[in-house]
Amino acid sequence: MNGAEALLKTLVDAGLEICFANPGTSEMHLVTAIGKTDRMRPILCLFEGVVTGAADGYARMTGTPAVTLLHLGPGLANGMANLHNAKKARVPLVNIVGDHAPYHLPYNAPLTSDVSAHAVINSSWVETSTSADDLARLGAVAVQQARSGIGKISTLIAPANHAWEPAKNSYPALPIEPPPEVTSETVETVSTLLKNEKKTAIVLGGYALRQQDLLLASRISARTGAPLFAETFPTRHQRGAGRVNITRVPYFAELAIPVLSEFEQFILVGTATPVAFFAYPDTPSLLVSSKAVVTTLASPEEKTLTALTDLADRLGAAPGLETIQERVVPEVPSGELTAAAIGDTLAALLPEHAILSDEGITCSAEIFSRTAGAAKHDTLTITGGAIGQGLPVSFGAAIACPDRKVVALQADGSALYTMQSLWSMARENTDVVIVLLNNNSYAVLNIELARLKAGVPNDKTLSMLDIGHPSLDWQHIARGMKVSTSRATTAEEFHQQFAAAMNTHGPHLIEAIVKQDIANLFN
Amino acid sequence: MNGAEALLKTLVDAGLEICFANPGTSEMHLVTAIGKTDRMRPILCLFEGVVTGAADGYARMTGTPAVTLLHLGPGLANGMANLHNAKKARVPLVNIVGDHAPYHLPYNAPLTSDVSAHAVINSSWVETSTSADDLARLGAVAVQQARSGIGKISTLIAPANHAWEPAKNSYPALPIEPPPEVTSETVETVSTLLKNEKKTAIVLGGYALRQQDLLLASRISARTGAPLFAETFPTRHQRGAGRVNITRVPYFAELAIPVLSEFEQFILVGTATPVAFFAYPDTPSLLVSSKAVVTTLASPEEKTLTALTDLADRLGAAPGLETIQERVVPEVPSGELTAAAIGDTLAALLPEHAILSDEGITCSAEIFSRTAGAAKHDTLTITGGAIGQGLPVSFGAAIACPDRKVVALQADGSALYTMQSLWSMARENTDVVIVLLNNNSYAVLNIELARLKAGVPNDKTLSMLDIGHPSLDWQHIARGMKVSTSRATTAEEFHQQFAAAMNTHGPHLIEAIVKQDIANLFN
Repeated sequence: MNGAEALLKTLVDAGLEICFANPGTSEMHLVTAIGKTDRMRPILCLFEGVVTGAADGYARMTGTPAVTLLHLGPGLANGMANLHNAKKARVPLVNIVGDHAPYHLPYNAPLTSDVSAHAVINSSWVETSTSADDLARLGAVAVQQARSGIGKISTLIAPANHAWEPAKNSYPALPIEPPPEVTSETVETVSTLLKNEKKTAIVLGGYALRQQDLLLASRISARTGAPLFAETFPTRHQRGAGRVNITRVPYFAELAIPVLSEFEQFILVGTATPVAFFAYPDTPSLLVSSKAVVTTLASPEEKTLTALTDLADRLGAAPGLETIQERVVPEVPSGELTAAAIGDTLAALLPEHAILSDEGITCSAEIFSRTAGAAKHDTLTITGGAIGQGLPVSFGAAIACPDRKVVALQADGSALYTMQSLWSMARENTDVVIVLLNNNSYAVLNIELARLKAGVPNDKTLSMLDIGHPSLDWQHIARGMKVSTSRATTAEEFHQQFAAAMNTHGPHLIEAIVKQDIANLFN
Repeated sequence: MNGAEALLKTLVDAGLEICFANPGTSEMHLVTAIGKTDRMRPILCLFEGVVTGAADGYARMTGTPAVTLLHLGPGLANGMANLHNAKKARVPLVNIVGDHAPYHLPYNAPLTSDVSAHAVINSSWVETSTSADDLARLGAVAVQQARSGIGKISTLIAPANHAWEPAKNSYPALPIEPPPEVTSETVETVSTLLKNEKKTAIVLGGYALRQQDLLLASRISARTGAPLFAETFPTRHQRGAGRVNITRVPYFAELAIPVLSEFEQFILVGTATPVAFFAYPDTPSLLVSSKAVVTTLASPEEKTLTALTDLADRLGAAPGLETIQERVVPEVPSGELTAAAIGDTLAALLPEHAILSDEGITCSAEIFSRTAGAAKHDTLTITGGAIGQGLPVSFGAAIACPDRKVVALQADGSALYTMQSLWSMARENTDVVIVLLNNNSYAVLNIELARLKAGVPNDKTLSMLDIGHPSLDWQHIARGMKVSTSRATTAEEFHQQFAAAMNTHGPHLIEAIVKQDIANLFN
């Protein structure tokens, strides 16, 4: 048994089953060890941002870490943007990053870098093994750390020789610490606040946007009159008919501030105080009034379900008080292909338990509001704001849930960062339908430019936000990666193509040529 | 004048003219400032790895830093693999990375990260501005630092509000320190060593692979009998007819060690002691004998040209002693499309002053040896070993030298990491011909697997190195990004298509379906 084999046995004994991989020379013994076990499924990706984003999507749907296999500092660097999103999503994830043998490091070979300096940026736990045995031992710690609490990123740096040198044995799984429970004092405090007759809103995020939590929150809302809001970019939001429909805090501070300004008091459950995504001249960072009193029932790291159960009990918010969303089947849309039309088609046709990966950017808000009455589904969003997350996350979610339909709502500009995802979808024949929202533009940047009051832009400035010259041909790009495609320019065409895709297994890309009135997004 | 405008004026006053950009919201005032000046050309790229790789290629050809414009920590992270290559290439480069306004940072908005922790990994100089005025002041320091010595990476972190707040003025360019000169004592020591009759090799790298240096080195070699070797992955190697042809240290340690083992003494000029790219079981890291005496004439940071001039004078290595490479025009190749055939076609058809960006991986060595007698050209290689470098570098080189033909020798697996480069080539109509070496495989990893003696691989192991299922269709991928394509399956087809491309301006991709006997690469 070598160190790689001992590590692999340790990881699979701890329950890890999937490895998203983009290996190189220094990981070849790890690759060989994966090849020898039938308990770990390796999934090759052509770019590391796909690897880490897929592991994020997998963890969102299973609660279990996937392993990533990455090649030295630069390989880890390529995966860092989506590790940033995974960190903000608070998912469990175990990175295995190869490095040179320690005796090779002083020679400063071309690929030498400070791997640990890369890893600490997004990982809660980083260690480098000191021997083959230590590599296996640290594997158990990496899984323990990733699974402790709500979910964290562990990075284990594996010098090549520790993978090939002999190891004594693998290591058993270590005990896992569950997320901390909220104290009864905190619940009592919040219960009292909710009876003080101040104008109050309850903001939910993280695990509080799962079905059971939302049912409790809805009862609490009915009992106290405090409306519910969802955080803008949740990790996983369970929605649709038979569940609880809640409004999202708008992305645009100009829209969010008037909505939230009327409240004197906020209760946070599984989230932090709503803040603007960016700073803007003359716009506050905080979306709530500076005079508002903000109280946390459960932080994003704490157990929301027991806190909400306890709170509902104390408030007498009994079962039956919930407002349950009814199934709403919109008419088949017609005419121009707008975000509204796409939303209506999704609301009509999403199958039950679909997974919606939303990197729709400027189209997202409209589609979100139109799909409240769709069949039960899970929405996954771009938690950390690092674009290029939607395709990999949808791929990982499809690996996690092979029996569920996955729909990736994907803006064109963002899709380009990790378009290599399409090949992995084709290779694994994952059931992902990509709705490629083609507006030939970094539309959101045109909006942000206006919001930043940088003056009237000239043509040269606008050219820096213009991805339409030349326009990308998504039919060719997707086919180049062996994903079938279609193209919709009207609402009817989109509806028909989406209906067909819902009835076919395997990856398919619908290029939706979207009509978008950017000015209108401010209204 | 706001901070962004003051910074831009500072940068252009310091001689910077090109900005490779992938901006976001926090960079909108910088984008607007670039729009307002006619002295900075902005070049939009669809992925940050293209931005940083292009800046590297630009610097290799001009010696001048380009500006990159990147969006926060995740945007910088996406550009880090090619910054690693640029760092190892020792090129000057100025990154401008936006960040949140300092007053916005405590709110931990989704895109909040430690930008500086990202930047220090590959930058010699990193600063964050403290005000709008400071932003402009630091712009002058960033350029000074980037241009001091042989070339360094500077990263200036620009909080969004320092770009939009008023600034008093721009700042004049600061004095630049040239690379240090080698002392006459060192030259005398080396001169003495070269006369001690020990078996000696001279290894050249960095600026010592430019034409003038090579002519001097050739005279010294002729005078002393010490053969010349080039480092394996040089930043820029001037080659071809009328220049000096020298052998490269082979990539494979198994090949390099026997070649170098016969020497008792090494003289290094602009490079470090040759070492193996990776560590392997039972293979030493050092490629030279452990008993060999290694002496540095000039380190990679020192001025090689004056050191070689001085050394040639001391040794009486007079003009006329050089061995000048003759023009060799191979016959038009026929039959199977092999690396040898591609090399022969390039040797026959490369126009004078072509730039060859070489990320050909398993095809590179053969093509290198076949192009010694091509017309004068510059070869740029993958200095840091982080793949995904060849296409961006070729793009940046083409921006730097619009009157020169650029050829990107590009392995298929590596091309996928930064394939967004193709769109920028189409947009800017750069004169780049991509020879896409399609072997449908991570061929080098199959070789590395064998070299690592990890045992006979099973099908599951090999699947992790297999990018041929499904096979990527480069005709579609390139056309999707608006680059014209052709496909060659025989030596004759390749020759004809390459000839046509040499006579046409603008980007074109030739997909070369390469026959490769991997086992043979060891012979």
